[in-house]
Amino acid sequence: MDQFTGKHILSVKQFDRDSIQTIFSTADMMLPYAKREKRTRVLDGAILGNMFFEASTRTRVSFGSAFNLLGGFVRETTGMATSALSKGESLYDTARVLSSYADVIAMRHPQSGSVSEFSQGSMVPVINGGDGANEHPTQALLDLYTIEKELASNLKTIDNMHIAMVGDLKYGRTVHSLSKLLANYDNITFSLISPKELAMPDEVISIIEDAGHRVIIHDQLEGNLDADILYLTRIQEERFDDPAEANLYRGQFRLNQQIYTQHCKSNTVIMHPLPRDSRSEANELDTDLNLNPNLAIFRQVENGVLIRMALFALTLGVSDQVQQHECAVNWYSNKSISK
Amino acid sequence: MDQFTGKHILSVKQFDRDSIQTIFSTADMMLPYAKREKRTRVLDGAILGNMFFEASTRTRVSFGSAFNLLGGFVRETTGMATSALSKGESLYDTARVLSSYADVIAMRHPQSGSVSEFSQGSMVPVINGGDGANEHPTQALLDLYTIEKELASNLKTIDNMHIAMVGDLKYGRTVHSLSKLLANYDNITFSLISPKELAMPDEVISIIEDAGHRVIIHDQLEGNLDADILYLTRIQEERFDDPAEANLYRGQFRLNQQIYTQHCKSNTVIMHPLPRDSRSEANELDTDLNLNPNLAIFRQVENGVLIRMALFALTLGVSDQVQQHECAVNWYSNKSISK
Amino acid sequence: MDQFTGKHILSVKQFDRDSIQTIFSTADMMLPYAKREKRTRVLDGAILGNMFFEASTRTRVSFGSAFNLLGGFVRETTGMATSALSKGESLYDTARVLSSYADVIAMRHPQSGSVSEFSQGSMVPVINGGDGANEHPTQALLDLYTIEKELASNLKTIDNMHIAMVGDLKYGRTVHSLSKLLANYDNITFSLISPKELAMPDEVISIIEDAGHRVIIHDQLEGNLDADILYLTRIQEERFDDPAEANLYRGQFRLNQQIYTQHCKSNTVIMHPLPRDSRSEANELDTDLNLNPNLAIFRQVENGVLIRMALFALTLGVSDQVQQHECAVNWYSNKSISK
Repeated sequence: MDQFTGKHILSVKQFDRDSIQTIFSTADMMLPYAKREKRTRVLDGAILGNMFFEASTRTRVSFGSAFNLLGGFVRETTGMATSALSKGESLYDTARVLSSYADVIAMRHPQSGSVSEFSQGSMVPVINGGDGANEHPTQALLDLYTIEKELASNLKTIDNMHIAMVGDLKYGRTVHSLSKLLANYDNITFSLISPKELAMPDEVISIIEDAGHRVIIHDQLEGNLDADILYLTRIQEERFDDPAEANLYRGQFRLNQQIYTQHCKSNTVIMHPLPRDSRSEANELDTDLNLNPNLAIFRQVENGVLIRMALFALTLGVSDQVQQHECAVNWYSNKSISK
Repeated sequence: MDQFTGKHILSVKQFDRDSIQTIFSTADMMLPYAKREKRTRVLDGAILGNMFFEASTRTRVSFGSAFNLLGGFVRETTGMATSALSKGESLYDTARVLSSYADVIAMRHPQSGSVSEFSQGSMVPVINGGDGANEHPTQALLDLYTIEKELASNLKTIDNMHIAMVGDLKYGRTVHSLSKLLANYDNITFSLISPKELAMPDEVISIIEDAGHRVIIHDQLEGNLDADILYLTRIQEERFDDPAEANLYRGQFRLNQQIYTQHCKSNTVIMHPLPRDSRSEANELDTDLNLNPNLAIFRQVENGVLIRMALFALTLGVSDQVQQHECAVNWYSNKSISK
Repeated sequence: MDQFTGKHILSVKQFDRDSIQTIFSTADMMLPYAKREKRTRVLDGAILGNMFFEASTRTRVSFGSAFNLLGGFVRETTGMATSALSKGESLYDTARVLSSYADVIAMRHPQSGSVSEFSQGSMVPVINGGDGANEHPTQALLDLYTIEKELASNLKTIDNMHIAMVGDLKYGRTVHSLSKLLANYDNITFSLISPKELAMPDEVISIIEDAGHRVIIHDQLEGNLDADILYLTRIQEERFDDPAEANLYRGQFRLNQQIYTQHCKSNTVIMHPLPRDSRSEANELDTDLNLNPNLAIFRQVENGVLIRMALFALTLGVSDQVQQHECAVNWYSNKSISK
């Protein structure tokens, strides 16, 4: 039993540096299970209510697999329930009902603030899997966890690092949440690289600067990429009155191996919240980077499973029992082979 | 092995007072598992085919979780299969196929009589999860079970009780099925309160009266609420030629704490099949009742899990083995804390 | 560990007679678990990613149940992911991501070649559950396995048999794949019975003939049905310019008990990939055949579960451990009773 037991995970605002560290050290402990070197049945018999009122295959399956990796069952829903919610049921009632069926709930919903409102009716811990434009705290945590691990292998730390955030910084929920989490650390340099129309909101910049970090704003990619971490996001054509303008920007904020070699450090880590748009007109993150060992985008995905396993173990109060329920993996897996 | 082993659960007509009692005592036995005081693995390895050919998130998840609570796996489908049924496959063939994949099937289908037809092709027990306007026997059983438990805590019984059914009694499948189950008991007073346009069908009234019960018909709420059980249902605007008329009635058949205090007994139990419409224009069951300890609507939901666990255990013939497969619950839960 | 461990199952072309025999003897071993005479937990804790990017209830549930029968968990998706793929993500990226969540993946996708492309990004074995008009290897294997078992009970073998394929032989993916598998065997007589417009493609006929088999082409049913195996497929009206012509053919390629008695051998085995169209205007395989013991269509379904169990056990390298993880079945089942 610790600070997370029985609690909801709703917002990045609820974390400080200590609680983040608790989550990360729990995630570290999950690695051998996710890599299939061994397995654990610590949540054998427990039920996750994986309530996705908005479609999101990868986030939904990531939550579900994380729970299975701890030995538990998953009940789920995909897409807006046409029945109850459209019949005028309140989120409070929905939560009272659905929490009768589960030990913990992961929830995504298109409406900002909905998951928090839902949590007030729930009898079990609720983990926010994304509530519209508002929050997606497990994505922010997996991004931060990836940064810490990638930097560690480069003998660096989040403190004193240089991160460049690139692309649509105005509407990108991911970079906002990550920035707020990073505000808990010390002496970070933020290079914010975007078209002027898609600049980071002042509110987020204030949070970063008030925490004592350094912010540099650019509107072009070249010459500004010598960061420790390069976090790219999508330039979306629907944000522009003139789609041709979007294509212009997409051309300017595109990364490929040639640009990397010319402008990045030799170990600049490349991150992206995925999916990356690989159509030729977008191609924001060229596939010629797939062989670059600093491309961390698929390690982000793997870290997402670890973070979600950690959050389940913590909210259900079993993080200290994971190892005592260990078993061997008897089937073939090459996941334990380092890539 | 008992009377339910290997049998289908299709209709409330198949139960008598004895068989109802068997289900209820089995449901009682399920309480500690649902409350997470302990767990059972009696159906470890068994497979539920949770075949919802019509969307119904809560009923589907309730069946699925009930099966998980007994230790079993769930395979499911949600929404009408566009493939096979639309290619002209008979329900008999569909049942032959799907019953190859499961040990028991829970099925919802929009077409009246479909589940019964399906059951004729199934090699495994089929539980009706609602077949259109026809039957929804697990809802009727959970309602009856709730009534028995709520009355017991008021030192009363189903025999000799007074139940008031309110709202749309014409189209409400729930009140029809519940009335048929209640016909198995003795000396009940039924107050049927509805707009004249939405009165209880004569066929159902005949069943009640032929069983020796007393029926009183009202068309207004006030003055007729001093029952032991108050079972409310929705007034639906689509039932009226003039929607304004529906709103008029909804205003008259609305319950809130003030009306409760003025017209009900101090321990009148409030029930509703859910979802309740909490939009201001409907508000059939005001949220100011949420603190009223006699509001049983969320206990109905919890009892639904117990009833479905009982039906799985009985149809699969393991009701006498549940306790011998018990394990401890090692994760955090506050469900065992009485509310 | 054998030849299938860690490998993808993508196409019928990857099998020869020996590897087919390995799959079939593994499938034989699965029978007591599928019949619920006992169960196995050999894949307890393993996760199947059941990725159906095209709806197919029965194939999806068959894969899922096969994995549950081996003790494993199933995470799944149904229908095209509107999110990632429509945002321009490559199948390679999708595979890298989804394979982080599973130990093995079964995948269906509407696009020809998609599953093979996907497999190149996957870190875990991928089993093709159907990729458009291209391949559906588990259907072909279950058909061949059914043929072998049905013939064996008639004291015959695939070598030297006579198979009649009937109906739409032009567009039927099933008969193409089955023919390619049969080319691995010796001295088979193929009667190909179809309207001229729906004749077997020359490419498939060449494969059969090049392997030394005998091909006879007919355009009517009567007089050509004295085969050991009769494999019927649907005549689809959308294949004809004039739907009336389709109805004409459907009338001529319809099987019922009277035609069977008159034209088939006493033990001709009747097969069909299902679903069969039981609407009166189609009625390709009359329900009056349901009592004919040679109607193997539902045994095909049961064999599909065995084949998929075998492929999971083989690709995950546990086929030699299945029995050591056996347990008793403690619930009611009549599946072990021979029908």
